[in-house]
Amino acid sequence: MMSNLNISRRKLITFSSVAIAGLSVNQLLAKAYAQEVQKSISFSLPMLDKVVTPDATNPVRLNFNENALGMSPRAKQAAIDAIPKANRYAKAEMPLLNKALAKHHQVVESQILLTAGSSEGIRSTISAFVKPDTQLVIPELTYGDGEHFAKIFNLKITKVPCLTDWKIDIAGLKKAVEDYQGFSIVYLVNPNNPTSTVFGINEIESWISSKPRNTIFIFDEAYAEFVNDPTFESADKFITQGYENIVLLKTFSKIHAMAGLRVGYIVSTEANIKNIEQYVAGEKLNYCGVCAALASINDTQYLTYSKKVVDVSREIMEKVLSELGLHYLKSETNFMFHKVPIKLNDYRELMKHKFILVGRDFSPATNWCRISLGTPSEMLYIANVMRELREKAMI
Amino acid sequence: MMSNLNISRRKLITFSSVAIAGLSVNQLLAKAYAQEVQKSISFSLPMLDKVVTPDATNPVRLNFNENALGMSPRAKQAAIDAIPKANRYAKAEMPLLNKALAKHHQVVESQILLTAGSSEGIRSTISAFVKPDTQLVIPELTYGDGEHFAKIFNLKITKVPCLTDWKIDIAGLKKAVEDYQGFSIVYLVNPNNPTSTVFGINEIESWISSKPRNTIFIFDEAYAEFVNDPTFESADKFITQGYENIVLLKTFSKIHAMAGLRVGYIVSTEANIKNIEQYVAGEKLNYCGVCAALASINDTQYLTYSKKVVDVSREIMEKVLSELGLHYLKSETNFMFHKVPIKLNDYRELMKHKFILVGRDFSPATNWCRISLGTPSEMLYIANVMRELREKAMI
Repeated sequence: MMSNLNISRRKLITFSSVAIAGLSVNQLLAKAYAQEVQKSISFSLPMLDKVVTPDATNPVRLNFNENALGMSPRAKQAAIDAIPKANRYAKAEMPLLNKALAKHHQVVESQILLTAGSSEGIRSTISAFVKPDTQLVIPELTYGDGEHFAKIFNLKITKVPCLTDWKIDIAGLKKAVEDYQGFSIVYLVNPNNPTSTVFGINEIESWISSKPRNTIFIFDEAYAEFVNDPTFESADKFITQGYENIVLLKTFSKIHAMAGLRVGYIVSTEANIKNIEQYVAGEKLNYCGVCAALASINDTQYLTYSKKVVDVSREIMEKVLSELGLHYLKSETNFMFHKVPIKLNDYRELMKHKFILVGRDFSPATNWCRISLGTPSEMLYIANVMRELREKAMI
Repeated sequence: MMSNLNISRRKLITFSSVAIAGLSVNQLLAKAYAQEVQKSISFSLPMLDKVVTPDATNPVRLNFNENALGMSPRAKQAAIDAIPKANRYAKAEMPLLNKALAKHHQVVESQILLTAGSSEGIRSTISAFVKPDTQLVIPELTYGDGEHFAKIFNLKITKVPCLTDWKIDIAGLKKAVEDYQGFSIVYLVNPNNPTSTVFGINEIESWISSKPRNTIFIFDEAYAEFVNDPTFESADKFITQGYENIVLLKTFSKIHAMAGLRVGYIVSTEANIKNIEQYVAGEKLNYCGVCAALASINDTQYLTYSKKVVDVSREIMEKVLSELGLHYLKSETNFMFHKVPIKLNDYRELMKHKFILVGRDFSPATNWCRISLGTPSEMLYIANVMRELREKAMI
């Protein structure tokens, strides 16, 4: 195995199967990789430069689709600089963020609404469109918040079964809307969670442009910046084209690595925003989050890097899953969804025993596991744990 | 005037009318005061040590009842330390804050619900108690969020006129509940905003303990820690006594100086909390806010100091208002409500011209102004501006 250390730099970067096969050399590899990547950017990367030695109090956290990289150095500094001012409300800074986001999506400022993470976005949007006899239409496997809030508002929940490998059945969703007399809220997470897959904008374009009556489409694009599939396109294009039946939900939690700072936003028509605005808690976001978001939104160097690191981590995970013959879906996000050969709960326990926390049960996909993509170093550690479990015939 | 500089240290601290009468020496006085206070505490107080020289871009902000002192040094450090972790959700820290708050109010943890500031507390509590034929009962002059959210939920709003000097008419509120057949939400802000006055717990105890049917009392005690009036007592005592008809709303925005970090919470019975919990955006608070709150909650040195500074600022403001013969209400908060001799809008403009921002119009109290209490240095500046305006017969 030691001969693996003698690989070329190019091989190291592309993570050839030979290079990542070694058990004992993984941490050295991760370090070498980090040094390699470090050369290409101007800021310091402590997380990649670290050797991963998790323990019970510091496990590898792959259970909440957080971005393991940490915020961009600029965002961190902006958050620090905001603290001495945080005895006051961020009244001057919120409009600046609003303006930057409007520019980013090529809409006017009144088409943007800031929310405390996308949780508040989902809740407030559903609240705003609740009318008598409203149904929420969702794929059978998707992010749970839409259903969660719709249940609180006593909406009818219509779940449309997925196709093979949890592919979203757009035609089935369309039929569920057409078959219903009342108002329909169609909640689409693209890329989807927990499956990590996307549908192409071409699959849904004709339905949206037909402007079906009594229907609003909520697009939750929390993970869009990680997508590689060229058929994917943001639904914001419908909004800039003037469609009134689209609400787009976004968050700084994922590519911007700001999950803990609770900054999200909504893009829609001015009229929809005015309606939804009534249902947010208080039009006040936390100072650190607002300033960090302002610093991060145009930090293209960090954003490119954030995506690139996930691409590398995904490659490591794909390799080990293929090697072990575990079926997985093509990931377009910072997490992967793969079949497990044993009961999910047992799988989670085995992982936990090795200080790795993986996703919860996503019923009805009970024999699948969602694993968030951490740093390459973390993924190398996990790959080795999985190989070790296979050698012991435990998975 | 220069002879005023020759005052004793004791006189300086108590702000004798002679000491604060001087125009040209105010900034020196403020600095001397700051040095005096500094001796009694272990942390540095940059805001008090500053000479106040506001301008158009850095006005004295007395319009949002923020705490001009800034967060406690411990809270600031905790917020800074949270930033490198804020790529993740504050899942481990939120229960710690919950626990600390439960201990503080002598209730169990399931009786506490964290909210994104008290705005989310007001919204979620009202949401949770909306039933058909529900009315919101409020004094005619109080904080506007209760009415704002109730209107969105289409509640009937019943405003009970205040007594002389905006005193809350508890008997009138009781009658409004008794005269109504449906469900009543009584929203009581104590100390009240914008009046800054309190009602004694004895005034309302018999009504609450009679457990009126179809009635829930929301107590919003955002400013309770500033109160000096011994008849005031927190409504949390009813909760610890097992009353089911009380919801207490609290915030870290005021005495803790964390307005920009959006941390509030609700105290009630376990059943009420379970109900209200359904109506919060996402059970996730920002990492900096959670950690700062955890550091601040037991920082008694800072909290005592925060209150003491407001007491001094209030004394300065009381003196100048008395001196100018402007009627004011006895303040139990970090703001004051006083009558203005000219139109409020003109008064605000005059102040703005001197780089002082004061409260907006609080209809129907159109000839009253709410001024937040800033640092003593800021209040000395304002006192001088008011004297100057009087000398010119402008107010």
